[in-house]
Amino acid sequence: MIDTSPLVDQYCHGVVRAELGLGTFESHLGRGAGAPAAGTTLFDTQTGFAVRRWCPPLLGLEPHSSPARYLARRRELGPLETERRLLRGSGITTYLVDTGLPGDLTGPAELAASGEAEAHEIVRLELLAEHVADTSGTVESFLGNLAAAVHHAAGSAVAFTSVSGLRHTTALAPRPPGPTEVHAAAGRLLDVRHEGRRPGAATSDKGPGPALVGHLLWLALSSGIPLQLHAGLAEGRAAALHADPALLCGFADATAGLGADVVLLHGYPYHRYAAHLAGVHPHVYADLGPALARTGARAGAVLAEILELAPFGKLLFSSGARALPELHVVGARLFKEALGRVLGGWVMEGAWSAADADRVAGLISAGNARRVYGLES
Amino acid sequence: MIDTSPLVDQYCHGVVRAELGLGTFESHLGRGAGAPAAGTTLFDTQTGFAVRRWCPPLLGLEPHSSPARYLARRRELGPLETERRLLRGSGITTYLVDTGLPGDLTGPAELAASGEAEAHEIVRLELLAEHVADTSGTVESFLGNLAAAVHHAAGSAVAFTSVSGLRHTTALAPRPPGPTEVHAAAGRLLDVRHEGRRPGAATSDKGPGPALVGHLLWLALSSGIPLQLHAGLAEGRAAALHADPALLCGFADATAGLGADVVLLHGYPYHRYAAHLAGVHPHVYADLGPALARTGARAGAVLAEILELAPFGKLLFSSGARALPELHVVGARLFKEALGRVLGGWVMEGAWSAADADRVAGLISAGNARRVYGLES
Amino acid sequence: MIDTSPLVDQYCHGVVRAELGLGTFESHLGRGAGAPAAGTTLFDTQTGFAVRRWCPPLLGLEPHSSPARYLARRRELGPLETERRLLRGSGITTYLVDTGLPGDLTGPAELAASGEAEAHEIVRLELLAEHVADTSGTVESFLGNLAAAVHHAAGSAVAFTSVSGLRHTTALAPRPPGPTEVHAAAGRLLDVRHEGRRPGAATSDKGPGPALVGHLLWLALSSGIPLQLHAGLAEGRAAALHADPALLCGFADATAGLGADVVLLHGYPYHRYAAHLAGVHPHVYADLGPALARTGARAGAVLAEILELAPFGKLLFSSGARALPELHVVGARLFKEALGRVLGGWVMEGAWSAADADRVAGLISAGNARRVYGLES
Repeated sequence: MIDTSPLVDQYCHGVVRAELGLGTFESHLGRGAGAPAAGTTLFDTQTGFAVRRWCPPLLGLEPHSSPARYLARRRELGPLETERRLLRGSGITTYLVDTGLPGDLTGPAELAASGEAEAHEIVRLELLAEHVADTSGTVESFLGNLAAAVHHAAGSAVAFTSVSGLRHTTALAPRPPGPTEVHAAAGRLLDVRHEGRRPGAATSDKGPGPALVGHLLWLALSSGIPLQLHAGLAEGRAAALHADPALLCGFADATAGLGADVVLLHGYPYHRYAAHLAGVHPHVYADLGPALARTGARAGAVLAEILELAPFGKLLFSSGARALPELHVVGARLFKEALGRVLGGWVMEGAWSAADADRVAGLISAGNARRVYGLES
Repeated sequence: MIDTSPLVDQYCHGVVRAELGLGTFESHLGRGAGAPAAGTTLFDTQTGFAVRRWCPPLLGLEPHSSPARYLARRRELGPLETERRLLRGSGITTYLVDTGLPGDLTGPAELAASGEAEAHEIVRLELLAEHVADTSGTVESFLGNLAAAVHHAAGSAVAFTSVSGLRHTTALAPRPPGPTEVHAAAGRLLDVRHEGRRPGAATSDKGPGPALVGHLLWLALSSGIPLQLHAGLAEGRAAALHADPALLCGFADATAGLGADVVLLHGYPYHRYAAHLAGVHPHVYADLGPALARTGARAGAVLAEILELAPFGKLLFSSGARALPELHVVGARLFKEALGRVLGGWVMEGAWSAADADRVAGLISAGNARRVYGLES
Repeated sequence: MIDTSPLVDQYCHGVVRAELGLGTFESHLGRGAGAPAAGTTLFDTQTGFAVRRWCPPLLGLEPHSSPARYLARRRELGPLETERRLLRGSGITTYLVDTGLPGDLTGPAELAASGEAEAHEIVRLELLAEHVADTSGTVESFLGNLAAAVHHAAGSAVAFTSVSGLRHTTALAPRPPGPTEVHAAAGRLLDVRHEGRRPGAATSDKGPGPALVGHLLWLALSSGIPLQLHAGLAEGRAAALHADPALLCGFADATAGLGADVVLLHGYPYHRYAAHLAGVHPHVYADLGPALARTGARAGAVLAEILELAPFGKLLFSSGARALPELHVVGARLFKEALGRVLGGWVMEGAWSAADADRVAGLISAGNARRVYGLES
């Protein structure tokens, strides 16, 4: 038996505070916008099956209980008690929490309290820029305030994160954007943010454009704390093509000497490329993120693929969970079981020694994250 | 044991009527044009080995009989008796048949009779356009006749199909082509078709160009019946790059609200992306098509990969078979065995319940196809 | 048990003559340039673990001995005795050696003597061009000498090789470059080579540019002996995107009738596409090269993937080893074990017959290489 506890979850979100009906719960199991196709349900996915396998026992039900029965039990216990039982049963002892999602989700302190765990904040660069824009009058003051805000955030946060890899590949150019471009992009953001205060204004395209995202990435890299970049398929509909981490190749080359680490999040189905980049760039790391929670019974197969090229000191566990504490549980449990099965299999075949397998399990589960994010053990 | 019968084969072709010599039979096992390399044979492929595993017993021989012995037995029985024994041993009870391939292949009615099964027609859009062009004099009348023909075909066919994804990626632009482009492309098709009637004219490039294919796709989508798009590697030599279903991302976005379903055929080796698209778009479905028949002993591994992201209500079985009834057999048998092994393994590990596995097997084998194509069960 | 001996290693390099310290040895286990990240070691990779599994027993130690202990034993024996024991324990009886790497590596004759094996030379086109440039005065004489040198080399070498696929995708255009381009590129190479003779000149970008590489490829293809093209991820940092063998599609189409074979080296993680190309083009072959040595305990899984689409007469074993005889050992041992496990598994399931499995193992291990390179058996 390979020992994988305790776990540091290097990237996740908070959970919904409200009580959830069956339909809302189901919508958090999917990756698209909108409702499932007629005649289908999002419970009929690897994620849905994994939730029904791992979570009912933590609430006193049989594994594979029906969705209706599970939701009834959840209501019986209430959202807070459900969250407590699930998080405490996950095996995660430290949460690094991206607080940049919209919606009424719990923050790091609440996750820590519910889960009897530690929690630290990951700052989302796009959101930080929007907040600074909302309180800045001119382009000059905005850019000055932004640099100060990034520097300040680096003092308390454990990492920065950006979803730009999914949206603006030009933000990943192998050099910082020029001052003219940055000024123009800053001006545009100020315009849309200030207009956006008027009621009825559209809420889309309110975020920073490519040149400003590029500026944020290079600012973040100069702060010294790690930068996490989303690198797999988008959760929503668009831009699947833009998420290929091989596009990050030039960015990784260009940022090698800056002293900050770059962590590629959620590489699936490009995880072999993410592993390749982690293998050739000393400052690049990779995780599988929600790939395991998304692929359920296949978690071991997917984990084994990323273990092909990635050096074992360059891989980090994360659940990538959002909104439902069930997703923290399945991320963690699927990871622990998959890692134990894959490494245990290699020990049985004689390919790895048992001592090496235990050591590597400890690195991926927690040790690498403690080293990269400077956490105490 | 997971029960997967009966099967609805949601995409296949008819079979050759003539008796086949060893060389001709071998050529239907390959994916390229021309002959195999000197010193090699196409029987030495996963498909060749799968045919030798599954088909000889249906004709009264041992599994893994030599090609020469198998072909001798085939000649002994004659093509029609061979076809009958093979199709009736396949486990397929409903065939959806793309009748748009050149050559003297059997049609749906003959497949149904030989296989003691039901059969329905899939109409290939490119061929429909060519037929209409051959009987239309002017661009105006051609385009009018084409709209009528698509509407008419939707009344009897179960689906439309197009191979354009393999050839013209511009046909997959996220909007219908403009009238000027469509008129120009229609004029070009009329020209080449009418010239083509002269004996000796080249037969290549006689098909509709990108703008006309785009027009056909949007016409088909307005008809209400499903549209099947080829999305994997071309069977022939060219355009491997163009077949990436991630390129279909924008097309899927743009067609989400039209009410017609889009089925991605044959995604291998891009099947994980096809599964992703089926997961984020309610109107998008995926199959593995001939990937299983092409990968033989690896069918289970490939099937498991598509089961990572695709919701279980969005996957459809097909054999993708053409020309040889042996290919219907190996498509079906490999699928049944692979599905049983993969889902059965997950039940044994405790990842899935047995009841869920049986239900999902029924959906992928037949239930999803019955729902999507409006077939009676 | 599947019998895979003896092995023809169709692509490898020589080994370092000098005694190696722990740090230098470790650096040859990695794929990147510089040092590993702080707190990590390149021994913590699949390659590092595979070396520690397979090599210590050949030097009289336990499997999985520590790096320090292994290096101490290596020093005790000395570099030549270490090389002899390792190569003779590898199971390789014929080495095809790319002699075009910089550094003081052993040549084919020394590998043959140390390994009690045969060895033949593979000529690297880029290096050949540089040598000819160094002794040619004018563009005209250079191009004439180059054609003569390629023709001459084809008389003694078993194959040509080029790394251009990793650097210059325009060199893979589906037609020979025009004379004007070739002349200009030849002039540039002469300039940089002659300048390069001055001490202190930079050594980067001294190689032939895209048009000259294209010219070399077509020259090589006219020589009749096989041309090996690098087709996977670069070992260094740059250009991961350019290595996709799907980009080779048009090149393969265009070179189909020339009579020379094209061998795609090292396709991982694009090995399924390389296998596809080998399946549709009679003159295209594929190997897995160092993918097995790089993925260690996963070698069987990776090998199984390339066995999906590639005809069994079109796959060739190679170790891709360089610098360390340990890499010849792990390339060969991982291949033998993986092949035996994968094919043996298929025999156990009834998917393949035992006789077919043995025959295919012999083809991939040695028979295909003997046929393609015209080696005596």
